[in-house]
Amino acid sequence: MASKRNGKQTVKIQTPVSIASSACIVGPKEGQGPLRLYFDEIIEDEFWGEESWEKAESKLLRETFAKIINKASKTVNDIQYVIAGDLLNQCIATSFGLRESGIPFLGLYGACSTMAESMSVGAMLVEGGFADNLICVTSSHFCSAEKQFRFPLELGGQRPPTAQWTVTGSGGVMLSNQGTGPYIKHVTTGKIVDMGIKDANNMGAAMAPAAADTILTHFKDTGLKPEAYDLIITGDLGKLGKTICDELLRNQDLDISSRYNDCGAMIFDLERQDVHSGGSGCGCAASVLSGFVLNEMKKGTLNNVLLVATGALLSPTSTQQGESIPCIAHAVSISRNLS
Amino acid sequence: MASKRNGKQTVKIQTPVSIASSACIVGPKEGQGPLRLYFDEIIEDEFWGEESWEKAESKLLRETFAKIINKASKTVNDIQYVIAGDLLNQCIATSFGLRESGIPFLGLYGACSTMAESMSVGAMLVEGGFADNLICVTSSHFCSAEKQFRFPLELGGQRPPTAQWTVTGSGGVMLSNQGTGPYIKHVTTGKIVDMGIKDANNMGAAMAPAAADTILTHFKDTGLKPEAYDLIITGDLGKLGKTICDELLRNQDLDISSRYNDCGAMIFDLERQDVHSGGSGCGCAASVLSGFVLNEMKKGTLNNVLLVATGALLSPTSTQQGESIPCIAHAVSISRNLS
Repeated sequence: MASKRNGKQTVKIQTPVSIASSACIVGPKEGQGPLRLYFDEIIEDEFWGEESWEKAESKLLRETFAKIINKASKTVNDIQYVIAGDLLNQCIATSFGLRESGIPFLGLYGACSTMAESMSVGAMLVEGGFADNLICVTSSHFCSAEKQFRFPLELGGQRPPTAQWTVTGSGGVMLSNQGTGPYIKHVTTGKIVDMGIKDANNMGAAMAPAAADTILTHFKDTGLKPEAYDLIITGDLGKLGKTICDELLRNQDLDISSRYNDCGAMIFDLERQDVHSGGSGCGCAASVLSGFVLNEMKKGTLNNVLLVATGALLSPTSTQQGESIPCIAHAVSISRNLS
Repeated sequence: MASKRNGKQTVKIQTPVSIASSACIVGPKEGQGPLRLYFDEIIEDEFWGEESWEKAESKLLRETFAKIINKASKTVNDIQYVIAGDLLNQCIATSFGLRESGIPFLGLYGACSTMAESMSVGAMLVEGGFADNLICVTSSHFCSAEKQFRFPLELGGQRPPTAQWTVTGSGGVMLSNQGTGPYIKHVTTGKIVDMGIKDANNMGAAMAPAAADTILTHFKDTGLKPEAYDLIITGDLGKLGKTICDELLRNQDLDISSRYNDCGAMIFDLERQDVHSGGSGCGCAASVLSGFVLNEMKKGTLNNVLLVATGALLSPTSTQQGESIPCIAHAVSISRNLS
């Protein structure tokens, strides 16, 4: 095995990779949720002055990208790569959002796992000496996602209680070989897990086994115990998926419950905001990481966090053809201190 | 700048990264083309025993993936990552094709640039010590692509002379820190280039400026001259796009014409096979690389090759919304010898 590997699916980042800056912009509904004080900007309506939801999503990503660079006091010339993707067909939120950036671009598709996937690839590229600074960014938009994956919004379709609400938002980070942290310490790359769930309105249940698999693997690979983290946070399992993930881990004798939460369960007030099982979308983990997690780490209320972003790798076509939902979860561990 | 960087967009691979094996499977039309003797397998019809074109495309990718591992005399346990993507919405050819693989999976979206993008990321991960062996693979399918991007095949729509024919095929490579070459020497990562072309039936013209930009940058970054390569090969510009790329480079005082070809212009007999401007799709560059290029390198008729795979980062939605086509090209240089 190559020297930097730490078990079957994990890499230990040995040369410091610092999160030099982060930013996020969210939609109006997210801006009324419990995390509203953590976001850099809350837009007033879902169009944000654009002609379509897709263009509004591109603008979210473009403006977030600009904020990340500005907050790090850098210019585009200082950045070697932007690593990004989104949920839309052919990832157009990203390609149109970054069209004028002029930075070498590596496009990813990891569905809602994109934030952790981009940070995984990014951390390895910085640690490997291929970049001094790079940006990892992603987005999602409730209206563009509903239109593409489910039904026209105008139809006013009813949603089952297991359904989740796609977050309108973009978030991202700059990774750097300079800086004072927080630092990426481990990268655990997920494998595809498909337990046969076919209900595209129950993504939490479909993705929970992938999250549990990656969390178990992370602890097995690293030899760490859950106590190593103040917070283990999944991307967008929602209330139901979170419960399933917790139970799957207990069945494997791993109890993370006292330090476990889910971005989809945190970003909305599940009692008050009519989002059923909670938030979802690439922008869910991205904005909760860039907003809540990294700000709490800066304050020192969180010291060690394991982010496990989860993705459902289906399409409307695969669902119509009767297929089940392949899922994946990628984990990155983040620490305030190097040692 | 980090030490392994070689100019603004290029990385020099300093620790040997060998292409340990390659494989490709193509469709019946590709199997009647001028490169037919180079392909590992030619399927008899576009369904290949599956119920849908999408499932047939997943099978192409799955079987190609298996062939790559077998030809390297490895097992899945020897592989640390599979890096892959395709053209279908949410990259389902890949996620369903690799669903049972059990290998950590990094999904990419680079449209038809995916083969070079995956090899770029893969080469950096191997060189950086994060993997001993990994697989880069991609696919496309004429019928699934037409259905998704253009018109139902049953409509029998006429295609303009600038249109290209999506290759039905999958190809890929195993990259390894062991082996006797050929070796990846440089990785030049493209930035998004959009010259305002809006005609989704003229991808060659839309992508040619991105290809020219990356080729120019590669030579500027590395200080190499075109004579350093026996073959400079773009991914899927087709006949028209190839002519435009060649002309754009001449306008910048770079003449590559004596050693320049395009996978899309090579894979079909443009006079005889009724494919208008030539082949396209992720599977085009992938199968011409895995079939023709790497076999000729093995024979010694080619020693140094620059592969420049090109991608059009549009979607039917962006076209319907009147947008132009953002494009990208990623280059990897491959040499028989280390020195």
